[in-house]
Amino acid sequence: MLEPPKVAAAVADAKVHNPSVRRRLSVMNFLNEVAADYPLAVSFASGRPAEAFFELDTWLEGIPRYFDHLASRDGRSADEVARLVGQYGRTNGLINDLVAMQLLADDGVRCRAENIVITAGCQEALALCVQALCVQPGDVVLTRNPTYIGITGVATLADVDLVALDEGAGSVAEAIGRAARTLAAQGRRARALYLIPSFDNPTGATLSQTERLAILDVCQRYRIVVLEDNPYGMFRYEGEAAPSMATLDQHGVVVYLGTYSKTLCPAVRIGCAVVPETLFGDAGASRALLDDLGMRKSFVTVNSSQLNQALVGGVLLAEQCSLERLVAPARHHYRIHRDHLLGRLAAEFPNGCGVSWNRPEGGFFLTLELPFAFGQEQVSHCAENYQVIPLPMSFLALDGSQDRRVRMAFSNVSEAQIDAGVSRFADFVRETVAATPG
Amino acid sequence: MLEPPKVAAAVADAKVHNPSVRRRLSVMNFLNEVAADYPLAVSFASGRPAEAFFELDTWLEGIPRYFDHLASRDGRSADEVARLVGQYGRTNGLINDLVAMQLLADDGVRCRAENIVITAGCQEALALCVQALCVQPGDVVLTRNPTYIGITGVATLADVDLVALDEGAGSVAEAIGRAARTLAAQGRRARALYLIPSFDNPTGATLSQTERLAILDVCQRYRIVVLEDNPYGMFRYEGEAAPSMATLDQHGVVVYLGTYSKTLCPAVRIGCAVVPETLFGDAGASRALLDDLGMRKSFVTVNSSQLNQALVGGVLLAEQCSLERLVAPARHHYRIHRDHLLGRLAAEFPNGCGVSWNRPEGGFFLTLELPFAFGQEQVSHCAENYQVIPLPMSFLALDGSQDRRVRMAFSNVSEAQIDAGVSRFADFVRETVAATPG
Repeated sequence: MLEPPKVAAAVADAKVHNPSVRRRLSVMNFLNEVAADYPLAVSFASGRPAEAFFELDTWLEGIPRYFDHLASRDGRSADEVARLVGQYGRTNGLINDLVAMQLLADDGVRCRAENIVITAGCQEALALCVQALCVQPGDVVLTRNPTYIGITGVATLADVDLVALDEGAGSVAEAIGRAARTLAAQGRRARALYLIPSFDNPTGATLSQTERLAILDVCQRYRIVVLEDNPYGMFRYEGEAAPSMATLDQHGVVVYLGTYSKTLCPAVRIGCAVVPETLFGDAGASRALLDDLGMRKSFVTVNSSQLNQALVGGVLLAEQCSLERLVAPARHHYRIHRDHLLGRLAAEFPNGCGVSWNRPEGGFFLTLELPFAFGQEQVSHCAENYQVIPLPMSFLALDGSQDRRVRMAFSNVSEAQIDAGVSRFADFVRETVAATPG
Repeated sequence: MLEPPKVAAAVADAKVHNPSVRRRLSVMNFLNEVAADYPLAVSFASGRPAEAFFELDTWLEGIPRYFDHLASRDGRSADEVARLVGQYGRTNGLINDLVAMQLLADDGVRCRAENIVITAGCQEALALCVQALCVQPGDVVLTRNPTYIGITGVATLADVDLVALDEGAGSVAEAIGRAARTLAAQGRRARALYLIPSFDNPTGATLSQTERLAILDVCQRYRIVVLEDNPYGMFRYEGEAAPSMATLDQHGVVVYLGTYSKTLCPAVRIGCAVVPETLFGDAGASRALLDDLGMRKSFVTVNSSQLNQALVGGVLLAEQCSLERLVAPARHHYRIHRDHLLGRLAAEFPNGCGVSWNRPEGGFFLTLELPFAFGQEQVSHCAENYQVIPLPMSFLALDGSQDRRVRMAFSNVSEAQIDAGVSRFADFVRETVAATPG
């Protein structure tokens, strides 16, 4: 008789070679459990958008607007269109033309509707791209460190190595070049670079135009596809916007990843991947990538819900294919919260006290540097004894370099929660420093 | 300088070892192109549900009913609930309790809400299950032959071998036992069996209760998880229903896969996987599988759209958690169409003329056996010269055994289309037979 399939053990043994990787993937569960155990604690851990700006009712009511649009475009009755929308549909999407206009208006990304794959949230786009680009043994994805947990999960489950850029000694572009050469010497190959150039998750950092151009240059040289993830691009609070990497791309280096989870709401579960006209000058390779993404998608989600696409389509029609007007109040709200958090940090940690932080120009996150290590044990201790939950940056790191950092999300906490949370966290920090033998 | 990544070539070389497999995955594109090239041809190729029964407007209007339900259950305002539904949510789903009640009422499947994973359509459930169960080199999925293209795609993209049962010499259960032993002798392992026990896609065949029990027995013996896909279970036109395999399962053998794509409409993109209380008696393995499915899902679609879940939830509340009333008119419609197709076939092929077919007790499909091979060339010829498109069964086969069979879908064609289509196809058959040297 054969032994019963111990699923968890089998998975841990076979696909996830490094047990610490699986642990890394489960940290979000751990965090959710901590948050559930201490419901009164202020959580800076979740990077969710603020619910106050979700207008589900209005957006649902806009669905017939999209039906009417299709009806007049295709010479059908609105009833007939509603039925077709209810049916299975084109794998690569229904609302690609409107999305192309919105990407141009809001992100400066110029693309044809045919080059867009509409996905069930941006996470699916990321998963499809990594699977399609990394198909040979030794193909790897490069990423900054710390990085978004979503790319770690995708790479791990696809059995693709994720290689952290070593930025210690210079620019991101230089680190990419070094990584590409080191990998080549090992018979491996950097196929893709995952990047959130504007208001990075988790660090909050933004790349300058000069940095973006240098990264495009080195990626073109080494034939590394840049997966530009841009969920926060419309949430800039100060400073001049650098163009998106896709806008700057002259040579078919960038696959742009978009989402409506932050600009509208996560429940729409609509994102996209935009494939450039050529991949490094090769139009056939670009077409092949588009076909491959569609083929892969057809065996995971078949097609993205045409109902959700119709909802997004209705909003885009109402807003003349720019979300600028809709996003403005949320952006204002997030800016106020960022400023409030920065103010409270400055008040609680005068002269630093060994604590420092960055000032993100936009987005949902900032990075706090502590004078001591802050990990799983500390986050439980903070939740239990101080009723505050920051996110240990080590949870999102590919090595031990982030042990003294935490991510603070200011997107979905009230000003009162920021007041209480920062004050409690400062108590924790002061008491920990005082208790540490000098 | 490194060579540019020729995506298609790289994929074909690396992941899809057998080029015929990739060809198999692309047949649906081929069929779509044929259908697009000959828009006036009657297509029996698409197994889509009939659009006349989609009530998108009504279902959309029912969403607030689900909000109210959550509000009164959780003591929140309906506004507050709407915002929470718009947010990211629990990976394994929101409406699991209602789905559990519906599965019991309509499919006889008894399960706890906690054992359900709500997915972005049933295809995602299938993909997650195969990936979670087949993690060791040599783990394979068993399936009948011909089979649903969706399992072929999932297995191919997950780099898992799909092994066709050889039913020639006896029962399905015997074929499973033989396959398990042969694989074991090769150092390989059958981990899962994919099965549509009721009104199979593509054949239309249904397994008797005796056959189901024998399959459960042999699968328990060899520790093979049965992936029971049941999209057509509610569409029985005659005869007594055999219980679903999950209902008959006493030993934790069956993961049940459900979908609302046929009972409501495909655009809701909501399906589910139901994990048994134990896997072959092991409660820990069952829990591990549930966790593993959720972890994998979180890195593909994050969570299934809570908006779509709220729509399904609203329908389930309105229907007291049974879709029986809603499905009845569609079932009547499909039965009439099946009968009409059977009647036309009998009229056009009196005494068989070398053509035979089965009489499916339900579902969307029947199998037609021809006196000559019918493949890609013949389907193009039929579309161009006879304006009719059946689906060559070879497109869904894992070997050459299906070359003389076609699948006829009667779910989304009108009676007039059936009349014209069968008459034209009969012309084609008679002319082909006449032109074949006897």
